[in-house]
Amino acid sequence: MTTRRELLAALRRAVGEGAVVWRPEELATYEFDGTVERSVPHAVVLPESADEVQAVVRACTELGVPVTPRGAGTGLSGGSVPAKRGVVVSTARMRRILEIDPVDRVAVVEPGVANLELSRQAAKYGLFYAPDPSSQAACTIGGNVAENAGGPHCLALGVTQNFVLGLEVVTAAGELRWLGGRAPDPFGFDLRGAFIGSEGTLGIATKVIVRLLPVPPAVVTLLAAFPTVGQACEAVSSIIARGIIPAAMEMMDRLCIEAVEARFRVGYPPGAGAVLLVELDGLEGQVEAEAGRVRAECLEHGASEVRTAQGEEERALLWRGRKGAIPALGQLAPNYYIVDGVVPRSRLAAVMERVGEISARSGLRIANVFHAGDGNLHPLILFDEREPGAAARVLETAAAIMRVCVEEGGTLSGEHGIGAEKREFMPWLFSEADLENMARLRQVFGADAGLFNPCKVFPGGTGCGEMARHAGAVRAAGPDAYV
Amino acid sequence: MTTRRELLAALRRAVGEGAVVWRPEELATYEFDGTVERSVPHAVVLPESADEVQAVVRACTELGVPVTPRGAGTGLSGGSVPAKRGVVVSTARMRRILEIDPVDRVAVVEPGVANLELSRQAAKYGLFYAPDPSSQAACTIGGNVAENAGGPHCLALGVTQNFVLGLEVVTAAGELRWLGGRAPDPFGFDLRGAFIGSEGTLGIATKVIVRLLPVPPAVVTLLAAFPTVGQACEAVSSIIARGIIPAAMEMMDRLCIEAVEARFRVGYPPGAGAVLLVELDGLEGQVEAEAGRVRAECLEHGASEVRTAQGEEERALLWRGRKGAIPALGQLAPNYYIVDGVVPRSRLAAVMERVGEISARSGLRIANVFHAGDGNLHPLILFDEREPGAAARVLETAAAIMRVCVEEGGTLSGEHGIGAEKREFMPWLFSEADLENMARLRQVFGADAGLFNPCKVFPGGTGCGEMARHAGAVRAAGPDAYV
Repeated sequence: MTTRRELLAALRRAVGEGAVVWRPEELATYEFDGTVERSVPHAVVLPESADEVQAVVRACTELGVPVTPRGAGTGLSGGSVPAKRGVVVSTARMRRILEIDPVDRVAVVEPGVANLELSRQAAKYGLFYAPDPSSQAACTIGGNVAENAGGPHCLALGVTQNFVLGLEVVTAAGELRWLGGRAPDPFGFDLRGAFIGSEGTLGIATKVIVRLLPVPPAVVTLLAAFPTVGQACEAVSSIIARGIIPAAMEMMDRLCIEAVEARFRVGYPPGAGAVLLVELDGLEGQVEAEAGRVRAECLEHGASEVRTAQGEEERALLWRGRKGAIPALGQLAPNYYIVDGVVPRSRLAAVMERVGEISARSGLRIANVFHAGDGNLHPLILFDEREPGAAARVLETAAAIMRVCVEEGGTLSGEHGIGAEKREFMPWLFSEADLENMARLRQVFGADAGLFNPCKVFPGGTGCGEMARHAGAVRAAGPDAYV
Repeated sequence: MTTRRELLAALRRAVGEGAVVWRPEELATYEFDGTVERSVPHAVVLPESADEVQAVVRACTELGVPVTPRGAGTGLSGGSVPAKRGVVVSTARMRRILEIDPVDRVAVVEPGVANLELSRQAAKYGLFYAPDPSSQAACTIGGNVAENAGGPHCLALGVTQNFVLGLEVVTAAGELRWLGGRAPDPFGFDLRGAFIGSEGTLGIATKVIVRLLPVPPAVVTLLAAFPTVGQACEAVSSIIARGIIPAAMEMMDRLCIEAVEARFRVGYPPGAGAVLLVELDGLEGQVEAEAGRVRAECLEHGASEVRTAQGEEERALLWRGRKGAIPALGQLAPNYYIVDGVVPRSRLAAVMERVGEISARSGLRIANVFHAGDGNLHPLILFDEREPGAAARVLETAAAIMRVCVEEGGTLSGEHGIGAEKREFMPWLFSEADLENMARLRQVFGADAGLFNPCKVFPGGTGCGEMARHAGAVRAAGPDAYV
């Protein structure tokens, strides 16, 4: 057994005194992400270079101490919670944008760069980074890579997978390797693709090469109010069936609309059963033509009102409601828990109905705010942790929703990952043999499942039952969670 | 050592008498793909189900006989040539379209389905399959998966990787496994992505789930003629810089234009140094607006003429020139050899100039026809195999072109794969350690590098020097090759 003293000494040798966090009161910050899991690490390191990351991983491997990588800790599946304690490797000090190449539209960044910061810097060249999780002001590119993060604007453009060209990584075995490169078309075995979305279980990205896109010259944002979620869902299917792929297509249900109005007063129509936010972008002329068609589809499917944002200010206001939906819902109850599931777009209305039934049965209020265009649900369960057995009931309810998603031909995650929370559901979709085959990818990176971000993605694992489940984690951790 | 008799008996047990090809005159068909490599297999099997594929792979593994998967044999990197002889597993009898789901826009197909056949069947529902290699009438979805195939229309839409959701595969170890599934967002470890583009070295896909797209309601095709390739390249960069991403943007140089005109009389402007074919698709109104901008950009960059196809017939004619470019070039010399490289779009003009210099130095004529929008070159080297040392000189020249691509910040393959032909160039871009790491993916699929499609993708390997190089292979094999 390694003593705490030995561990800290080894870490100090790896990254220097000033980059090792060990005081209990400081470690508490690293106990959480945006979920209900929690576990305090023994130490946190803040390396500033790939060499330092490598030194830390090697030191921990030698000592047999678990390692858990961490970006901004905004994750929603427990991926960065150190399930078996040990050492958290934070990329918070690796936040340099190393290069923006406006001609080839490529950026090279360190993993700790915040998603929105990259788009801000790229804006100087008329470019932006497309995947836009709602947490984009805080969440990091490295964390986005780990979770294959999405966002409202990924409907037309695709998720992180489609925008990361190359990765420099320190593998779980402590080796420094390049996966992919700067070119748009991968060739050879595509380990870049396999690493993206591996939820920090195979290694730590130390450099990320991403593709940037030109900021579209014209944007139109529409808000459509419907009497029911079902009608709004039909409008969504119909818009897509017409060959229009909006930049974003986001939906909120009645409970969500009320919460947003109470907090932000963005002017969502009172009494609406569903609000659909549609954004179109592209060339001038083109977007206006599309907007006309979207409006017509919405009205045809029973919209009581379709409003087009007049100018940037109104557009920002409409989006503020969507982006602030989770914090607004947070006002309705002491605690909340966010579910992430995907269903075929054609099953959206039916699934929403079944989620409503689950809510009624469980006695827990469930609000819905989601990426309607790609069938990515985010039911948000409201509860009060002080009620006895609340946390367990919430997790049961979340499991029931996941079950419905799978029954309706959907899957377990659209963008938040499997993490610690949904790994026991993996056998609903994959046979044991398929899971074993998948898990073998660890061998490529020399990843010891018991030591490198243990207890994530795959079911089982020794010593994985130890994580505390604190239903109030989201609120207690400070900042609002995001979807 | 396994005798031929034992091998044939084992294969007959696996797939039945009628599905084993063994007569020398029949085996000759499987000696080639679209390149200069050749090697005759000991036997070919034509399984009709995943079970039969599995039985064959297991039988060969037990006997220690090499296995090489094969689609339509239209590949352009030697990927389906049985480098160490043994058994070729052809998917020619697995050509059922199992399902087309028009609501969720998904198709489930067997690997031997021809690319164009899938789009034809999907057209009944107003849908199509996006990646469109020029060989699409012949090439198979399984082969497309192996090579991560592209095509002219992949500029805006993406390559095979972006359209394959799930795969049933028989791994190189003979196990039947599912990778990915029906849902749009992969989760868990993305082995689906890692398998696509692995060039038939990890296993054989037995079912493929793909995403379909709606046929765009409006299409405009423009042809622009330029005095020089350099000017045409600048027009390409400028169009993209304006935020327009055409469905396709294809370029042909003077030699290519002359060859096409001589054979097809499509009416390309005589005396042009470069022809650029631009296709725009989307909604009515939108494409016309874009077409106006493309025309303006072309004229501004020196186009002598910009013509818009009037009606479907003229559109088909303009495309016939592009799609028939390779066969047309085939008339100019007894033999040709196609190179596949990628360079940053910004370096396109400079690289074309260097290719011209290489042509002059080598004394070999080189024609250029390429996917200009994404910097994917296809220099075509014309030669006569009867000249002594011709094949060696051609391969040297091709290597010099690849070298230029890498020097200019590009890569070794846009869509044809590394295969047998470019594996010795891999160290130009990847360190030995990175290559080793990449090759370790084989362990996940239990792939023995010496037995399962040996001598592909990675440099070295024992007994890999045996393949014959027959410069006339393309012509001797019968049908024209495609790009």
